[in-house]
Order: sequence, then C-alpha cells, then structure tokens
Amino acid sequence: MTSALYVINPNSTTSVTDGIDAALAPLRAPGMPDIRCITLQQGPAGVQTQRQIDDLISPLCARVQALEKDASAFVIACFSDPGLYSVREITSKPVLGIAECGVLTALTLGQRFGVISILQASVPRHLRYYGAMGVDARLAGDLPIGMGVAELSDQARTLAKMIAVGKTLREQHGADVLVMGCAGMAAFRRPLQRAVGIPVVEPTQATVSMALGRIQLAWEA
Amino acid sequence: MTSALYVINPNSTTSVTDGIDAALAPLRAPGMPDIRCITLQQGPAGVQTQRQIDDLISPLCARVQALEKDASAFVIACFSDPGLYSVREITSKPVLGIAECGVLTALTLGQRFGVISILQASVPRHLRYYGAMGVDARLAGDLPIGMGVAELSDQARTLAKMIAVGKTLREQHGADVLVMGCAGMAAFRRPLQRAVGIPVVEPTQATVSMALGRIQLAWEA
Amino acid sequence: MTSALYVINPNSTTSVTDGIDAALAPLRAPGMPDIRCITLQQGPAGVQTQRQIDDLISPLCARVQALEKDASAFVIACFSDPGLYSVREITSKPVLGIAECGVLTALTLGQRFGVISILQASVPRHLRYYGAMGVDARLAGDLPIGMGVAELSDQARTLAKMIAVGKTLREQHGADVLVMGCAGMAAFRRPLQRAVGIPVVEPTQATVSMALGRIQLAWEA
Amino acid sequence: MTSALYVINPNSTTSVTDGIDAALAPLRAPGMPDIRCITLQQGPAGVQTQRQIDDLISPLCARVQALEKDASAFVIACFSDPGLYSVREITSKPVLGIAECGVLTALTLGQRFGVISILQASVPRHLRYYGAMGVDARLAGDLPIGMGVAELSDQARTLAKMIAVGKTLREQHGADVLVMGCAGMAAFRRPLQRAVGIPVVEPTQATVSMALGRIQLAWEA
Amino acid sequence: MTSALYVINPNSTTSVTDGIDAALAPLRAPGMPDIRCITLQQGPAGVQTQRQIDDLISPLCARVQALEKDASAFVIACFSDPGLYSVREITSKPVLGIAECGVLTALTLGQRFGVISILQASVPRHLRYYGAMGVDARLAGDLPIGMGVAELSDQARTLAKMIAVGKTLREQHGADVLVMGCAGMAAFRRPLQRAVGIPVVEPTQATVSMALGRIQLAWEA
Amino acid sequence: MTSALYVINPNSTTSVTDGIDAALAPLRAPGMPDIRCITLQQGPAGVQTQRQIDDLISPLCARVQALEKDASAFVIACFSDPGLYSVREITSKPVLGIAECGVLTALTLGQRFGVISILQASVPRHLRYYGAMGVDARLAGDLPIGMGVAELSDQARTLAKMIAVGKTLREQHGADVLVMGCAGMAAFRRPLQRAVGIPVVEPTQATVSMALGRIQLAWEA
Repeated sequence: MTSALYVINPNSTTSVTDGIDAALAPLRAPGMPDIRCITLQQGPAGVQTQRQIDDLISPLCARVQALEKDASAFVIACFSDPGLYSVREITSKPVLGIAECGVLTALTLGQRFGVISILQASVPRHLRYYGAMGVDARLAGDLPIGMGVAELSDQARTLAKMIAVGKTLREQHGADVLVMGCAGMAAFRRPLQRAVGIPVVEPTQATVSMALGRIQLAWEA
Repeated sequence: MTSALYVINPNSTTSVTDGIDAALAPLRAPGMPDIRCITLQQGPAGVQTQRQIDDLISPLCARVQALEKDASAFVIACFSDPGLYSVREITSKPVLGIAECGVLTALTLGQRFGVISILQASVPRHLRYYGAMGVDARLAGDLPIGMGVAELSDQARTLAKMIAVGKTLREQHGADVLVMGCAGMAAFRRPLQRAVGIPVVEPTQATVSMALGRIQLAWEA
Repeated sequence: MTSALYVINPNSTTSVTDGIDAALAPLRAPGMPDIRCITLQQGPAGVQTQRQIDDLISPLCARVQALEKDASAFVIACFSDPGLYSVREITSKPVLGIAECGVLTALTLGQRFGVISILQASVPRHLRYYGAMGVDARLAGDLPIGMGVAELSDQARTLAKMIAVGKTLREQHGADVLVMGCAGMAAFRRPLQRAVGIPVVEPTQATVSMALGRIQLAWEA
Repeated sequence: MTSALYVINPNSTTSVTDGIDAALAPLRAPGMPDIRCITLQQGPAGVQTQRQIDDLISPLCARVQALEKDASAFVIACFSDPGLYSVREITSKPVLGIAECGVLTALTLGQRFGVISILQASVPRHLRYYGAMGVDARLAGDLPIGMGVAELSDQARTLAKMIAVGKTLREQHGADVLVMGCAGMAAFRRPLQRAVGIPVVEPTQATVSMALGRIQLAWEA
Repeated sequence: MTSALYVINPNSTTSVTDGIDAALAPLRAPGMPDIRCITLQQGPAGVQTQRQIDDLISPLCARVQALEKDASAFVIACFSDPGLYSVREITSKPVLGIAECGVLTALTLGQRFGVISILQASVPRHLRYYGAMGVDARLAGDLPIGMGVAELSDQARTLAKMIAVGKTLREQHGADVLVMGCAGMAAFRRPLQRAVGIPVVEPTQATVSMALGRIQLAWEA
Repeated sequence: MTSALYVINPNSTTSVTDGIDAALAPLRAPGMPDIRCITLQQGPAGVQTQRQIDDLISPLCARVQALEKDASAFVIACFSDPGLYSVREITSKPVLGIAECGVLTALTLGQRFGVISILQASVPRHLRYYGAMGVDARLAGDLPIGMGVAELSDQARTLAKMIAVGKTLREQHGADVLVMGCAGMAAFRRPLQRAVGIPVVEPTQATVSMALGRIQLAWEA
C-alpha cells in the first residue's frame, strides 16, 4: 500500500503541523498506512473565526482533490472540523474531523465531557456542533483559556491556563473526561491529565487512530 | 431612512429572486424599510450540495461588505442558511437566515413541524442544523420531494409532490405545521396549506418580517 | 385596514400598559397595522402565581371575543403567556405570546439564552414552558431578581438587580443572550445590554414585530 | 383518620365519576385513607378543549378550598391535568394529576410509552405536557381514537378503536407500554392489555395508588 | 392475602435493613399487603462499585426465585437498582427499584431534582441511569457527600454533609426537590427537608408505596 | 510488545469467536499489537436475556483478571456490552464495548443510525443503553430480525432478514447508516451494505480498531 493517510492542518503555521506530526509517532508502525501531515498554506495563521473557517474550505477541497489519487483517508486537524461535509462530498475516501472524533472518543472515557477551548468566540460554534452531533446531554461544559494565537507561544502559561480551566470543568461543571479543543498541543496532554486527574483526549491522536482502522477495514463508503 | 433590508438569493437564478421579491409584496409599506432582493451571481444555479454552500460564502460575504454602508439588515434566502455565522461576524447589522427563522416561526403555529425539502441529500444537513438549533424534539420529519433543479420548472408536478409529502408528514409523522424547505416557492404556500390542511410557513416571508422588526427596533448587536 | 393589532396587558396596572405602549413606538409606521395596547382590568395588579394566570384567562377570552371583529391579531403581554392556547381556540386571528416569541427571538441572537425573571416562584413555571417548547437544550439559566411588585417601582434598584442577575447568567451559566422575563420594562433593555455586554431581548417588542408580519402576510390559520 | 382522599372528576358527567369510583375498589382497604370520588358539576360534559380546561380551574379551586379542611390529598382525574399547578398553590395537601402519574407509572413498565387519546385536538396539548415533563425521549407516540363524547357510549366500538390504536402504537411506533389517555374507562384496561399484548396503565388507578402512599407517609410539602 | 411484598436490601448490613423496615411503618395497614424487609446476606456490606452490583445479582435472583411463590411484589432497596431488569425477567410479579421510583416521585414534587449521593464514584453510574430513564432534562445535579461506609455511622456528621450538599443543589444547581441517593437513611428525611427548605424524597418509602398500589391493582404483567 | 489485545466473546459458541477472529484479519499488521480472540466458556450459547448478561459478568471479570498481566486492552464482543463498567473497574487497561464503539463509529458515517438487532426482547435494553449514552437524538430505530439462536445458522435466511430490516430502517425510519446489533456476523457486512445502499458498521471491527489506537497511544487511564 503506497497511498497515505493525509492529516491536513488547515492553518498555515508549520510549527502546528510539526506538533501534530510528532504526536502521531506512536501510531506509526510497519505494515500500517503511512501518515503524512501537511499544512494548508492558504489557511489562516490560526483558525479563530467562522469567516476563516469558511474561507479555507475551498483551498482545502482543492488540496484534497489534488491528493486524492494517492490518499487512503483524510483527517482535518482543526477543532472546528472545517469543511468536513464538503470534503466528504468530493472524495470517496474516509474523512474524519478531530472535533467529531475527539468528542466521540471522550464518550468512551467518561460520562460528562469538558472541552478546553482557546477563545471564547469559538464556544458558541462548538456548542452548535455538539448540538448537531446530538451529544449535548453528555456535555459538562466548554470553557476557553482566552489566549490569542501570539500568546500561545508561551507554553508554560498556556499549560497553566489549560490546567486551571480543566479543574474548573471538573470541579464546578462535573466533567470526568476532558477534550483539548485544539490541534497541535499534544505535548500538554499528559501533564494536563496528571494535574487535573481525569482522562484527557488529544483529538488529533484520537482521530488518526480511528482513521487508520477505517483504512484497514476498507469499508466502502 | 434610505438604507434597505437586503434579501440575498445566494443562487444565481434570477427567476428565484423574482419569486422571492413578489412574495414580499405584502411586507412592503410606506414608512417601512425598503426591501431589496438581489441575486448572488457567483452562486450556483441552485444550492444542492454542501460544497456549493461553502463555495458561495466568500462571494456572499464580499457582497455583504459592499452593501453594508447602505444596509439596515440582511436576509440570506436559502434554506441551508449558507454563511450565516460568517456574515454575522463581518457586519454589525442584523443577519437572519430563512431556515432558522422559518423553523422558529413554525414553532408558534404547531407542536410538531414537518419540512418539505427538495433533495434527499439535503436532509442530513437539515437534521444537523435542527440539532444545532436544539429544536429536534419538535421535529416531526424532514422529507424530500426528490426533484432536481431542472424538474422544478414543472410547477404543477412540483406542487403535487409537495402536497403528497406534506400529507405524509401530517398523517404518518404527526406534523401539525409545515415549513417549505426552499426559497422562491411562495406561490405554492396557499394551495399547499389548503390541500394538506395544516399551517404552512414560507420561510423567506417569515424571515423578512422578523428582519423588519429588528430594523425598526434598532437593537444594537 | 382599520382593524388593529391588540396588545393585551393581562394585569390591571395601567402604568405597565403605558410602558408597553411606549416601547412599541418604533414599530409604528404609516401603512402598517395600528397597534393598540389595552389593560385587562380584571387581571391582578401583577401576575405572580399560577392561580392568577388561570383566573385571568376567562376575562381575557371575553375581551378577545369582544375585540375580535375589529382585530387583526392579538399579543398577550405577560411572560407566562397566560391563556395562549385558549385564545388561539376562540379566534381565527394570529395570537402570539411574549414568552414564546421572546425566547424564539433570542435563539437568533445567541446560542445559550438566559432569562431574568422577577420572582423565584415563576422559575419552575418557566422551565415547564421551555420544556413544552422543546428548547431547553438552549437554556443557560432562568434566575429571578427576587423583587415584589411594590419594590419594582424603585427603578434604579430594579435595573441594578437585573444587571447583577444578567452578569451571573453570562459568567456562571454561559448565557450569550438574555431575555427579560417580564413585560413593561423595555426602558431597561438598552442599559441592561450595555452593562452585561450581550444582546438583550425585550419580549413584547420582539413579539409585536412578529405579529405585524403575521398580519401583513395574512396567512390563514 | 376521618379525612379523605378526594378524587375530583372535573367534568360534569356522573357516569364517568361512577366509573372512576368502581375502578378504585381494589385500592380501598381497612385502615387506609377513605377515597371519595366527586363530580365537578360546573365542568363540561367532557373535557375537549383548552378553553374548557382553563374555565374549570376556578370552580375546581373553589371546590378544593371547600374540601380542604377535610382532605388528606387530591387527585385531579382528567388526562389534561387541569389546574394542577393552581391547586398545588392553594392547598398544602398533596395534589396529583392523572396524566403526570399515569405517564410516570408507565415509565416503570416499558421503555417507550404510547398514549391512546380520545381526540386529535388533544394530542398537541399532551405533547406540550410530555415536553414540560421532560419525558419525550420515552414517548413512542400519542394517537387518538377520534371519537366524540356522544360516540363513547358505544362501548364495544370504543374498545375496538382503542385496541386498533394500541396495536398501531406497538407495531409502528415501538410502544411497549400503553397509557389510557382518559379517565373513567378502567373497565377497558384488561381487555385492551390482553388484545394488544403489552402492559396498559389506567391513569386514575395509578395516580390514586400514589396518592395513598403520599398520605400515609405524611411528607410535609 | 397471605403473600407479601418483599423489600430486599441487597447489602448484608442488617442495620440498614432495620432502618428500611422502620421507615416503612407508616405504609403498613390492616387489609394491606404485608411488607417484609430482608437482607441479602451474600451482598457487600455496602454497595459502592459496579462490580459489587453485578456480583450481587445472581444471589439476588436466587433469593427472588426462592420467595416467588410467596411474593406479591418485590422492591430492590439500593439506589443503583441492581439487577432490576434481570429480576423482572425471572418473575411475573411487579418489581420496582428505588432509584427509578424515587426519581419518578421527585418529578411530581419539583421541576428540577437534585440527588444526594454517598460516593463520587457512583455519580457517573447514576447519570447513565437518568439517561437511560430519559429524564436528564429534569436533573439539577447529583453530588456526593463523599463519606465511606464506615464514616456513615457518624449520624450527625452524615446529616450535616447531606444538608450541605442539599443546599448546594438548591442554590447553585437550581434543584427544587431532592432525592436521597441511598437506602436506609429515612430518619434524615425530615431534618434534611427542614434544613434545605425543599421537598425531599426518601426513595424506599416512595417505591414501596408504589409497589403496594401495584399489588392492590393486580395488573397482570 | 508481547502483550495482546484480548477480544472476549462472552458467549460459549466458538464458531462466533472464529467469525470474530476472521473479521479482524484486516486489522492485523506487523508492529501492531497482537489480537487474540477468546471464548468465555462459562457464557451462554448466545446472549439473549438480561439474566444471561448479568450472570456472565463474574466469569468475565475472572477471565480479565487472569489475563491482565498479559493484556494491553480488552474488547467485550457482545452488543449488550455486558460487564463493561465492572471490567473497567478491575483493570487499568483500556476496555471497550462493541455496542458503545459501534454506535459512536456510526455517528461519523451518517446522521441517523439504525440498529439491526436479533431479538425483539433486546430492543428495550438497547434503547436504555442509547439513552445512557445520550445519543438517542441520533437514533432512527432499532428493529429485530426476530430469529432465535438456532435459526441463525441458516445464513441465507439470516442475511435476507437483515436486509429486509435494514431497508425498513432506511425507508421508513430515515436511517442513513446501519449498525449490526450483534457480534460474529461480519461476513454479512458487505452484502448488507450493498443491498441496503447505506454504510453498515460491523461493531467488533469498529471497536477493535479503536482499541488498537488506544494501545498505541498508551494514554494512562
């Protein structure tokens, strides 16, 4: 099998792609599908608004179409699952989004999931998505750390904020599992889980592992 | 007040825009905001796929920005509410979508709403939207008439199909109010209601009437 | 069109009716239906209990029947929507309630609505109503200011309490839109919105604007 | 204990009260609270409309107040639970409604409950009530037999219709327990259950048995 | 009638059985079914884990089968309703669980129920159960007092903790009725209700009263 | 890595285990965790009742404990997910159930899932589970083929029944994805999908693929 699973980072920040790529190391194995992480250069530096989401769908679809011949599946690695349904229309290969699969994975690890988002402005969009997924009875809460793209480079402060929000979700909202509401921060998963004391889902890892199975099973769409 | 309420038909078919325009005649009155119906020429002939929806958002936003200085509010006249949240981000004027307002209006006219869609492929997209709206406990069903864009020009057959689907929604799914899941078919509202015997919401009319109030009240966003 | 939209304040306090009337000024326009605000003199000074609600339905229906020949639509201007379904049975004209339409309007302005009620005792009744409406997945919370009818005449204190409750709904319950759970306090809408920083729905204004559209469209029941 | 549990038939048809009274025979026992079935003479011959429901609340409350000194609890024996919340406000004694308790009892006997109603016009009212109760995830369906008050005196035909509707609820809607959506038809419970083959709840019996426990336990309100 | 209603305490602690037995005194009456409280000696000292729950089902079923000839109904007196559906399969007699009936009873006493649990580890199990019951729209919250079996013998401290948790449920979660999430603590019901100021359901009492009615009515399964 | 993923067939029928084993062939790869399918000999020939489910948990837990030292994860391969929460308590390794993961996987493939069950008696149990999972808003329906264990050996007839039920779920209940509500029938997946025309989830395959990812990621519990 020479085709690959393409994990597309729909923002243009290659360090995020690098972080995703590193986080997927445990999922690589001989005899398993190749995992290739790529950057959508036409995307924004970081996805913050609905407008950015909608604007990146067209280049995302173009990229998917360019890769399709060589692809065994696609993962869209942004917690807003941008273009998920458009991409599904234009390819017969499996297409998974990290918000959808991250949340579904959390449902196997706890009874009430909390989501740690980056920006407050994303929360209503996430809530609409959980509603569309029909899983809001399982939602404990979705709270932002409230840091802009530039600030996120301060890793110690970002982790500290994520831990604080995670503890609030556990103690005040009843979460017993957390989902990181962003891609590219897998390095924080373990310290976050240890500090908060409940399971933490890193959504890109969760999604890629599901995509690998989909490729192996070769269920026709 | 020289600014206008812009009703944007996001498909490129001007006869649809004309149908919308005619349907809004009862909502025009002296002293009321001007209602201008326009066609998004970059849109598809008819919106059928998620890809078409996502592709029209960028020109739709460009159009909104071009009109904004002169606009008092915007209505997006397609039952998939394409770009609703992007447009809301880029203007401080009220922005309403006909699926959202059509369904909400139906909630005041019956306890279980049925939606008459055009294509089967749109139904899952609608269901996701009702879920995001949190109103699926009120949904009786969403069924398609299953006619392509070309076939819709046969008006007698289109109406007959809508009546048949409406009766199925009433009799087998328990609908006591119907929503027409499309724009530009206001002429069918009355015969459809008479044939099925329960209230029928024409979503563009419903939405424009809500937008007029929003303009008059001048609630700041 | 010489008939009118009747907005019925079902409590006997004419100053409340006056407040409603003033709040509707922006919705009056030449060529638009006349809006007449009237007081149900047999109603209580202020609606506080279910018993008061049930007791006023009979005189409310009598009033509606007396006005019907001259009416184009009715709005019941009390946040408990007293008698809404009885009135709908006895007239073929559109009948809208301010709780129903106020909440539905809020659904177009935010993803989680908070309601500022007057009395704690009303909250369970409201919750039952949101459940009947099937919208409780969208509810952030419904909290009372806890002031009796007499105390409400202290306007500064009332507004201060509403702001405090509004901030609690936003900060602790995740509301991104508020509904004023009462009629006749439209003067507080703007300062409340400015203080809390999220959209505020004044339900009588929202409802009357929807009723005007219903009249113009002349959809038969 | 000389006080009694009052079961109030809120319609004026004494044969219905007689039917209720007979159905409660198994719940009478020495040392248990006395059960007295009474007729609200000011009620309609049969409750069919919301208007009738709202109109009977005032005399119902008057009756409750007249009886209160002598009462240990009240059951309102009409499937629309008319005045339930008003009556609860005016007495400190337990007050139970047969729709509420009938449905809750069904939840212990099956996973999806079906309701056999008398008139189609009652169904939306019932659906609002199940929504207010927050139990519509458990509802299989609510279907009417579509017979008017006069027709109900033809008992064989009434039972045949109830069996037909019950079978539809089981076979097409997935009901595994039924609730009779009316009072005074307890004599049909057993043949209905035998014919349809799933448990059938007679709501007045179910409710009175719950009320007896409430009296015995003497939980203060 | 010489057969009895068997209330089975599925833990092996006879003092719990004694507490249950004492709490049922008000439900005993001449001419009513005999109520016999028994201890499942093979059960754990106190039910804390899912493993304990699953392990006790087999001896519980054996006990039920041994008693069946002599039984008119069974109540399983543990808030996890262990083995409820297995026991229902092996007997044609009514079988009720105290979590199910305790919660359903609470739905008649308030609009949002709060549950006072013993251990945090039980909360996700309870949440799954409320979901299976389809009543989580009515749930205010389920919070533990966090005391182990040994600690519960300190009655003053146990009651104080229950009061504290009950107040949190009322004030921060909006509960207007409480359910005691355990058996054998009926003695705390009254002081708890007085201290918190909202109705408190003691689930074994609530369930046994429903079971008595079921016996009297003799509805075949 | 010498430890293995254990897939436990909790019924005693080794041909079912063999079918599971064969179905997992595509998920085996060099460098990936070893997958070992084992039979719980103390289990029933086929799981049909709640009693059988509850009875097998104790030997299932014993087996898990015996294997734990050597295990990297466990999959319980029965659509009732017997003992899922008990097993999770007694091991720190990931434990997944095929009903849970099968349904969650379906949520990525369609908007309304239908389940093809074997026996009618299992349907209420499944419905309780979907409620506990909080996903019933996504459920189209769960219908049985109604064949006993003995009859299932007639493979042609079994497949024909599954196709007939699948078509009913698609056409009358609106399913756009199906889940096979049983283990060991993977050979029918492809013909079923082709005949019905919508994606079909084979739950053991779906679950094992998720478990492999969980092992690779080594997220601590």
